[in-house]
Order: sequence, then C-alpha cells, then structure tokens
Amino acid sequence: MDAATAVAFERPDAPALQAVLRGLAELLGPRAVTGQALREQHSHGEGLPACGMPDVVVFPNGNDEVAAILRLCHAHGVPVVPYGAGSSLEGQLAALHGGVSLDLSRLDQVLSVSAESMDCRVQAGVTREALNAAVRDTGLFFTVDPGANATLGGMAATRASGTNTVRYGTMRENVLGLTVVTPDGQVIHTGGRARKSSAGLDLTHLYIGSEGTLGVITEIQVRLHPVPESIVAAVCQFADLDGAIGAAVAAMQSGLRVARIELLDEVRMRACIAYSKLDYAEKPTLFLEFHGSLAGAAEDAEAMQAIAAEFGGSRFEFATRPEDRNRLWKARHNAYHAAMAMAPGKKNMATDVCVPISELPACLLATQADIAASGLLAPIVGHVGDGNFHLGILHDPADADECARAEALAFRVTRRAIEMGGTCSGEHGIGLHKIVHLRTEHGAAVEVMKTIKRALDPTGIMNPGKLYPA
Amino acid sequence: MDAATAVAFERPDAPALQAVLRGLAELLGPRAVTGQALREQHSHGEGLPACGMPDVVVFPNGNDEVAAILRLCHAHGVPVVPYGAGSSLEGQLAALHGGVSLDLSRLDQVLSVSAESMDCRVQAGVTREALNAAVRDTGLFFTVDPGANATLGGMAATRASGTNTVRYGTMRENVLGLTVVTPDGQVIHTGGRARKSSAGLDLTHLYIGSEGTLGVITEIQVRLHPVPESIVAAVCQFADLDGAIGAAVAAMQSGLRVARIELLDEVRMRACIAYSKLDYAEKPTLFLEFHGSLAGAAEDAEAMQAIAAEFGGSRFEFATRPEDRNRLWKARHNAYHAAMAMAPGKKNMATDVCVPISELPACLLATQADIAASGLLAPIVGHVGDGNFHLGILHDPADADECARAEALAFRVTRRAIEMGGTCSGEHGIGLHKIVHLRTEHGAAVEVMKTIKRALDPTGIMNPGKLYPA
Repeated sequence: MDAATAVAFERPDAPALQAVLRGLAELLGPRAVTGQALREQHSHGEGLPACGMPDVVVFPNGNDEVAAILRLCHAHGVPVVPYGAGSSLEGQLAALHGGVSLDLSRLDQVLSVSAESMDCRVQAGVTREALNAAVRDTGLFFTVDPGANATLGGMAATRASGTNTVRYGTMRENVLGLTVVTPDGQVIHTGGRARKSSAGLDLTHLYIGSEGTLGVITEIQVRLHPVPESIVAAVCQFADLDGAIGAAVAAMQSGLRVARIELLDEVRMRACIAYSKLDYAEKPTLFLEFHGSLAGAAEDAEAMQAIAAEFGGSRFEFATRPEDRNRLWKARHNAYHAAMAMAPGKKNMATDVCVPISELPACLLATQADIAASGLLAPIVGHVGDGNFHLGILHDPADADECARAEALAFRVTRRAIEMGGTCSGEHGIGLHKIVHLRTEHGAAVEVMKTIKRALDPTGIMNPGKLYPA
Repeated sequence: MDAATAVAFERPDAPALQAVLRGLAELLGPRAVTGQALREQHSHGEGLPACGMPDVVVFPNGNDEVAAILRLCHAHGVPVVPYGAGSSLEGQLAALHGGVSLDLSRLDQVLSVSAESMDCRVQAGVTREALNAAVRDTGLFFTVDPGANATLGGMAATRASGTNTVRYGTMRENVLGLTVVTPDGQVIHTGGRARKSSAGLDLTHLYIGSEGTLGVITEIQVRLHPVPESIVAAVCQFADLDGAIGAAVAAMQSGLRVARIELLDEVRMRACIAYSKLDYAEKPTLFLEFHGSLAGAAEDAEAMQAIAAEFGGSRFEFATRPEDRNRLWKARHNAYHAAMAMAPGKKNMATDVCVPISELPACLLATQADIAASGLLAPIVGHVGDGNFHLGILHDPADADECARAEALAFRVTRRAIEMGGTCSGEHGIGLHKIVHLRTEHGAAVEVMKTIKRALDPTGIMNPGKLYPA
C-alpha cells in the first residue's frame, strides 16, 4: 500500500483551475500542455508508484515565466509541483492535489563558468552530465554524482549526494547560492559566490532539501573542483560482509583520503555481475577510488590495501585507464537497474538510511539478518564512507503479503537506523514515502519546519502533501 | 558614530521587567545578577563599543532552565541576548532594548565523544580550547579556529570559521546537529549524527549564523578530524602584496591541499614583529600549514614552495616542532592585539569581506590603495585561501574626522567586495555594524529572512535590533 493512497486529497475547485489554465495558455501558448500522456509521465519519478496526475504541464523559459506562473497559481490557490529530470525516488513528483507540474527542462543554460574561482552558475534544468560536459575544458569538474543524470535543480531540492560525497561533500557543501522564485512570484537570490559568509540567515541551505515545498529553485551557483592529476580505481572482495564493512570503517577512522568507497553485498554483486557482465566473484565487494597527485593517490591506495588485507580483503584489482574506470563505475551506477533485472515484474522499494560510522557494522549486519528473516530479495549497496546504504527490496505489487513484508522490512530497517543516531534519508529526501519517519527522527523540530512552511507558503500551493507530516 | 547610537531603542515597560526579574530570582536565586559591573561587562563583545546594558545577567545550568527563562521573557515581552565568551566583533551582545543577558558559561560540559564516529556533543558554553583539551587522547581534534577562545555556541551562532577553514570548513560544514531552545521555551533537536541527511528542512543551518535572533543554541554536535600524521608549518615572504596574493590564488587554483594559508601585509607584519618579537622582515608574508602523511605533507609543501618561487617568494622557513608551530600561530592569532598595540588609545574598526578567489588580487590591491588614500593605519590580515580578509582600521574615537574617514574606508571596502560577488561578512556576522550592508548584498531575500524571524520569534524577544535591517 502506498502512502499516497491512504489520504483523500482535495483537488483545486473547477473555477480556480479553469482560471489558471486560461492564464497559462495565454502566458505560454503551446508550452502549457494538458495532454493525458504528458501529464501521466509527469505524475511520478522513479521508485515506487505514486498517484497524482497534474492538470497541466508547463515549460517556462526563465525566471520571469516561473514567477508569472507562481503568481497565477498563488492567486487562485492551485498547487505547483516542480519537475526536473523525473529521477526522484520518494514520490516527490506526484501531483497529489492536481494542479501544475512545472517542468524546468527548458532552463538548460550554463550561465557562467569561472575557472579562476572554480565555480559556475547554471539554470535548474541543467543535468550533471551536461554540466560536466560544459566545463570539461577548464580542468575542473562538478563532483556530486547521485548516479542518475538528475538536474541540478532537482539535486539541490532533494539535497542529493552519491558516490563522491565522502571526499567532496553533498549538494549541501557544493552549492554556494541559489535563485529561488517564492510562492507569490518574487525572484530572490540567496548566498553568493564567496566560499563562506556569515551575512544573515542561511536561506541557501533552507531551500536545499526543501523538495519544492517552499519555492522553485531556478538557478544554482555551484563549486567545481580540479580534476585530480591521478585517479586510481580499485576493487576489493571479501569473504563476508563483516570484513568489507570493517575495512571501510577502519579506513574512515584512519583519516585516509578516499574519493569513493562503495559497498555491494553478495546479492547486489550477483545482480551487477549478471547485468553488467562483470568478471568478479559473488562476494561482498568494495569499489574504491583515490584522487590525488601521482604519488599521493598511489600512497592512499596502498594504505587502503593494507587496511583491507587486515580484514581479509583480496588483492586490489586496479582500473586506472579512463575506459576501465568508466566501465567499473557504470556497473556501479547500474546497480539499481541490475537489481530490478533480477526479478522481472517486481518493484524496488528503496531504503536510504545513514548512520554514524561507528554504528554502521552493527546496523548493516542486523539489516542483513532482517532481510534473511523476511524471505525477500533485497540487495544492498552503500556509500559506506558516509554511513549511508540502500536496500532494494524486490516485491510483487500484486502480492499483498509480499508487499506487507517489504513494508515491514523497510520500516524496521529505517527505525533501527534512527535509533542508532542516524537518519531515515541520507540522500533521497522525504517525499511521500518517508513522511512516516520524520517525526520519529526530528520530534518537535517538525513543528518548526511546519511553521516555516506556513510562513513562506501561506496558501500552501508548493508541492502539497509532501515532506511534512500532518 | 556607531550604528547603535543612531536609533532610539525602547526598553521593556517597568511592570513587565519587574515580573521577569522576580521570576528569574525565584528560578535562579544568586544566578540572576543585577549588579552594575557584571551588566556592563555583558553589554558588549570585542570590537567597536556598542551601547546596550542588560537589566540582568543570568547563568542557567541547562536546557530546562534556559527554557524556563525564555518562557518567562516570552510571556512578558522582555528581550533576551545570548552570551558566550564575549568575543564577538560586530556588536551582537549589546542589549539594545535592555532585558536579559543569557550567559551560557555554566553549560560547559562535553556531553559525549565518539572517537569511532569522529564526532562529539558539547554544551554551548564549551570553548574550542576546552574541547580540544577534552578530545586530545582520541587522536582527533576540532578544526574550527577563529583565533579567540570562543564558545562553541557563539561560534555556531555567528557561523565562525578562521585559519583552518580552507582545509576543514567553517562551522557550517562541521556542525551536524543542534539543541535549540525556541523563544517560547520549547527544546528542539535539529540534524543528528549522520554525516549527511535529506530528511526535512535543514534547521541546523538555519540556526547556524542566526546570531541569537531565532532561539538559543544550547548543545552542538560537531565533527572531529584525525590529527594528521605530519603537520608542517612554513613562512614565506614576498617583495610585494601582489606576489603574495598571486601565490595564494595559484595554490588554490592548482588544487593543492593546504591546511592554512594566511596573508599578513607589511603593516600587519610590522605590528606582529613588534608585538610577538618575530624574526621576520616587514614584508607581505604567507603563513602556511600542510597536513597529511609524512610524504604527503612534504610533497604539498614542496609544491607550494615551487608556486611561491614563481611569484618571487622567499625560501620557506619551516616550523615542524610543535613548540615552533605553536609560537608561529600564536603570533598570527595575536595579530588583532598586535595591531591595537601599534596605536595605543585607538580603536580597531574591523572589516570582514570575502570574495571569490578570482577577485581577490584586484580586491586586495584596490583596498590597499584605499587605505593609502585614507591616511589611516589599517593593517591587513587574510584567510586568503577562502578569499576572506580583514582590515583593522585604527582610529581615535575622540577624533570625529578620523572616525568619519575610518567609516568611509570600511564602507567603501565592503561595498566593493559585494560588487565583486563577495560578502560583507566572511566570518564575524552582521550584528549591528554590518546591518547597513545586508540589503545591498541580499536584496529581496532579506524580506524572506524577516518573514522567518517573525514566524519563529513572533514577540521579537530574541536579540532585537541585530542582523535584520528595518
């Protein structure tokens, strides 16, 4: 049962909606689309199905049009759901109350790049791959890599991270400033280009991770990082999960600089080996990467090899040529689709917990026992340097018992992580599917979040039904 | 003329104040102090004088007492100004409207340390030196170092940073979660212990840098970092400012890992040489530090030496023994007092701009020309790896013309930085003295800040008259 189906959502009243549809048609002409197919495509992201068809999908060209759309919706109390690449996983895109799906794909310009200051400004619809293609000549790159080719706007809105986070940080650490259109159609600029600032309330970080509930992010100023002189990727396999986690935790505690440290359990490895034709054993595995000078990256890799060996890890298999590294990381990025391919017809219920690194071994091992007890297939993949890991709980949506077991497993795993001082969501956001955990995790602070929501979106048009528990 | 003197501030009406004083005496006994000397001492931080005597200074013992004090003040509309070590520089501590100075010095416990997760939780009154003493045995340290022995609560409230920022980040990057008492006396917990989270609005970063205007920070969960195997400090002198800045900027752009990169101009060096009996020339100087493995730190220092040489830098003088490094950094930390000692009886008007690194050379050189044109002594010191630098504009508070020239210089330097994409405050906050710049820097976003302030502190008791322009 999906969280969204449990609530009866109101839709905008007909005269208000008609007024907005007329206004949008005037403003945008053919860029306001009411066709069924497009609306359906804009009613969900990836991840679990969610119900909520928008009444119209609009494709604004810039800040002024976004502002005009919001003023119109604000005046008539019609909901707005911002839409980037459609890759969100927690139901963030469902138009639960109907209204407008605001597709930002036409805001696809890299507005400025400063190689000297190692930053750039992009419109919200620029994808991370497009950005990295645009800055390739500068010797710099944008580090945040959630796997999917998400838009920068969507990544900011969900506080995304991914495989490079252990070295370079999440969106939280890499966004310097934003342009945001407020629900009543004001265009504001938060943050700036300075690397640090103590000038006033930190609105940038308030909008990052607000999942479209406070306004629409239309531009993002992000940090870029120098492409390291040397990039060394390595794969290390372990007899058991215990050893793989132990090595990862020991590496973090030693202060070793690792750029990526990804754990795949034996089930996820089986999926990836089959899907990406990899030549590895079906064993718990660390995918690693080291960035630095020629000497530095080699020194780090050696130090990690020594740590891994203490925990029973295999000799590293190295990938240093770009094509070999790309193949390796493509296989890692395809872990989601690889899991789906293991069980055709089944759905993937994703968990996204993140715990303090000291708790990771106990948390992962208890989770593995829970999976075994559930009788379900739920491959594990983790950004273990950050304490973050995902289950992909495969279940047949038509099988009520299997769905209930999947829900129970996800619930149990998530609540344990919270009890261990962790979070229900390391990088996917709350959306619909994690709302049930927010109050458990944040207690009375949730009321402060809701106070801010009411203050900044008094008519409640921005992505209603998401993030905040009732 | 001080900003604070320009406005006529209302004080609480007598019955309300009497009710609060009675309530505080009941609640705290001798820990509610109305003596003149203590109130005077709590009416200001360091930096420029500001007027605003609190009516009472209170010393709560923990969250519950802080909550009770705030409920009392909230009920009667009496202002509250949180007070840490008294080291803030922008007038944050002045009780402009009278009321209660909430001294957090008794909240001095390190509540928990996890060497395994490399984090700890402290009460707001713990100073950074006390924290580092408490974690010394773990092989970890708390990196944020603003020079002054500030409290963690004060550092969080002003979004402090300092010399290690270029490598380890500001308070923004090092705080994982907070306990905050809201103006109506609720105790909430923000963030958590996970290294990253996408679970709900980022209240942690909203309270960091809010300068006591949204609530009282009573506990802080912070990251710790491994003490590096090798720490190499070095000093490099340059014929001119141009060369020193050029070397610093080139180092940043090369991606070189430097842990500290501090610039002192020739005037600041003169002050420090006299004050700390240093054996250096009166020339623009970089104070540097490299952290890493034995090989890594040496490699980084060598790479930096090569860059510096290209810009006319001297051979490095190294300090690797702890006592030599400590002497060096003590001299750097005494730069503020060294400048004051240059001109006894004069006051130090501090600027705190931070610009994108590409703009730093032009910004610093234009600033140096402004100083020369002003006829004032204004030594420069900068965290140049971050693009942040300070003037200490020495002026005689009794000399109206000199004060006016100092104000004009500070204003001009700050506005130029904002025009270059920078900020009026890299690390000191807004307080009273930078309010005049906030709207220039943030435009309409200031109205969003004020909306949040009104929503979270509807009776306006929290540190009134600070941060937000009228």
